[in-house]
Amino acid sequence: MIRCPAKAGRRKAVAAVWRCGGGSVIDTCKAANLYATYPADLLDYVNAPIGKGRPIPGPLKPHIACPTTCGTGSECTGITIFDLLAQHVKTGIASKRLRPSLALIDPATTYTLPRNVVAASGFDVLSHALESYTAKPYTRRAASPTPSLRPMSQGANPWSDVGCEAALKLAGQYLQRAVNDASDTEARDRMMYAATLAGIAFGNSGVHLPHGMAYSVAGLIRDYRTAGYPQDEPMVPHGMSVIVNAPSVFRFTASACPQRHIHGAHCLGAEVKGATDEDAAEILAGQLIKMMRATGIPNGIGGVGYGEADVEALTRGAWAQQRLLNNAPRETLQDDLRHLYRGGMSYW
Amino acid sequence: MIRCPAKAGRRKAVAAVWRCGGGSVIDTCKAANLYATYPADLLDYVNAPIGKGRPIPGPLKPHIACPTTCGTGSECTGITIFDLLAQHVKTGIASKRLRPSLALIDPATTYTLPRNVVAASGFDVLSHALESYTAKPYTRRAASPTPSLRPMSQGANPWSDVGCEAALKLAGQYLQRAVNDASDTEARDRMMYAATLAGIAFGNSGVHLPHGMAYSVAGLIRDYRTAGYPQDEPMVPHGMSVIVNAPSVFRFTASACPQRHIHGAHCLGAEVKGATDEDAAEILAGQLIKMMRATGIPNGIGGVGYGEADVEALTRGAWAQQRLLNNAPRETLQDDLRHLYRGGMSYW
Repeated sequence: MIRCPAKAGRRKAVAAVWRCGGGSVIDTCKAANLYATYPADLLDYVNAPIGKGRPIPGPLKPHIACPTTCGTGSECTGITIFDLLAQHVKTGIASKRLRPSLALIDPATTYTLPRNVVAASGFDVLSHALESYTAKPYTRRAASPTPSLRPMSQGANPWSDVGCEAALKLAGQYLQRAVNDASDTEARDRMMYAATLAGIAFGNSGVHLPHGMAYSVAGLIRDYRTAGYPQDEPMVPHGMSVIVNAPSVFRFTASACPQRHIHGAHCLGAEVKGATDEDAAEILAGQLIKMMRATGIPNGIGGVGYGEADVEALTRGAWAQQRLLNNAPRETLQDDLRHLYRGGMSYW
Repeated sequence: MIRCPAKAGRRKAVAAVWRCGGGSVIDTCKAANLYATYPADLLDYVNAPIGKGRPIPGPLKPHIACPTTCGTGSECTGITIFDLLAQHVKTGIASKRLRPSLALIDPATTYTLPRNVVAASGFDVLSHALESYTAKPYTRRAASPTPSLRPMSQGANPWSDVGCEAALKLAGQYLQRAVNDASDTEARDRMMYAATLAGIAFGNSGVHLPHGMAYSVAGLIRDYRTAGYPQDEPMVPHGMSVIVNAPSVFRFTASACPQRHIHGAHCLGAEVKGATDEDAAEILAGQLIKMMRATGIPNGIGGVGYGEADVEALTRGAWAQQRLLNNAPRETLQDDLRHLYRGGMSYW
């Protein structure tokens, strides 16, 4: 249900927007609210270099977001992401002005979701939290002297850490239950709350490589379809396109902040007693793989239809996401991305 | 330093307030902002039954709070507390409209604080978190059908729990260090952050008995003075007047939610392996007493000058704080308060 579709947003009489739906619907309405309030060409506010990156001039109309999936956390963030079909790229607009005025979060909207929707959106939550927790520390992010040019994504910081740890503990305890048993309303309630906590965290810290690599995993899909989603065209759900990269990524980033990787795995339920820095990569990757297998996630990037022949195209797509690559705890070159896609082709 | 003292607040030309100081200064400026924006008789907005409890009609002027002690968390709450000298009572105003627009929190302001100021404000933080975590669950608080009459303090809830747990872990790790070594800036930084986290939590959940009992402990003081504070009149610092009640209170409340008492003690650093519900009271009280002794806090209510002859007057003062008593996890009668004051006279 969309109460403020993009076209309606163009009418000047709009006084407020109310949106009810998953992340795509919420993101659409953020943009509708923006262009209704401060009319402009589509690309004016879009992130540079694809758009002009013009700052949003002032507050938008009041808007109330009602998420219906336990995933994106879009109700807490100032980010809207969309496919720019004309240029075959995924891009977005980022500004604290886009953050909804109010979120009404009712987990009962998730009780009838198919299991794969819960799995995909649940792993989106999990990865928001894990990426924000392992992001480049805020003390190492370059800060522009011009406040309007400073990125909303500040890197890992004490405030985002609080949300990340709480969301990871909930995901570790409830994700598998929420996917595998639709009648387990306690588990679905907790995953909805985890989505909000992770949204608060990543809207502040920012995500990095698993999300950056997901853009091309989703965008270049050939014939993969997911049960529980519309079957009319090939599609890999967002959270699935993220998590298939994650074990490969965390094996690469573990050396940058091993204790954070170990603690992340611990929050998810892994046994970490006696673990040393050298164990960080395998402990976290192993825990993720275990959870992916237990919830029917495809076996890596190969599991959604990619192979060695796709590595170049996947890498080109990810390389365009410099905003996200720059938030990773390690410098990531094009060759690293090739290595990460190859490492993520199959996990078991 | 007060940029907007109460009198200046009465001038209509005030466009915004900026305040820099401890909790009393911030609370004073919240009230100044209110009466400057919506002039009224002092008691109009004050909590009933002492005041008329009139709702604040609209948003206040923008205001920026800069706390200089790691204690009250007032920068995060919609509460202002003051002594109404004419009636010899402590009371306040509670409305989300009072919450500052922005807080600038610089822990460097605490580096020169005397150790007792850090101890008293640090235990205020710890008790905010512990009381919010053990407060009556939000599902058991009666909700008025009239939104404006619903208390801001909702009882323990999943959002306040996140802030409480994070603040308790920080207090467990850093309070003693912050008190005992002024050069330990890491510890003072972390306690400042704990104060903010606990402020977010208790501004939402609400405190209960240790704070409710503290009103008369502070108000009836005869000749107690604290090193590090002004010596011109007798005074027990707020956080000290709270924590001297705490072990006695948590021995009383443990049976209502023993696992929360055990987990609270665990966050503070206590060994809880193998603890049963029956151990909850002593584990938490014991951990608090250990921390009080390690930081030079007086030995209970007796330690600040009270004795058996004061129990009736102390109880009368606490009994007036129904807003706080109603947030306790157990029903608390006047006889219970007598018992709690007696139990708090001396701990070691």
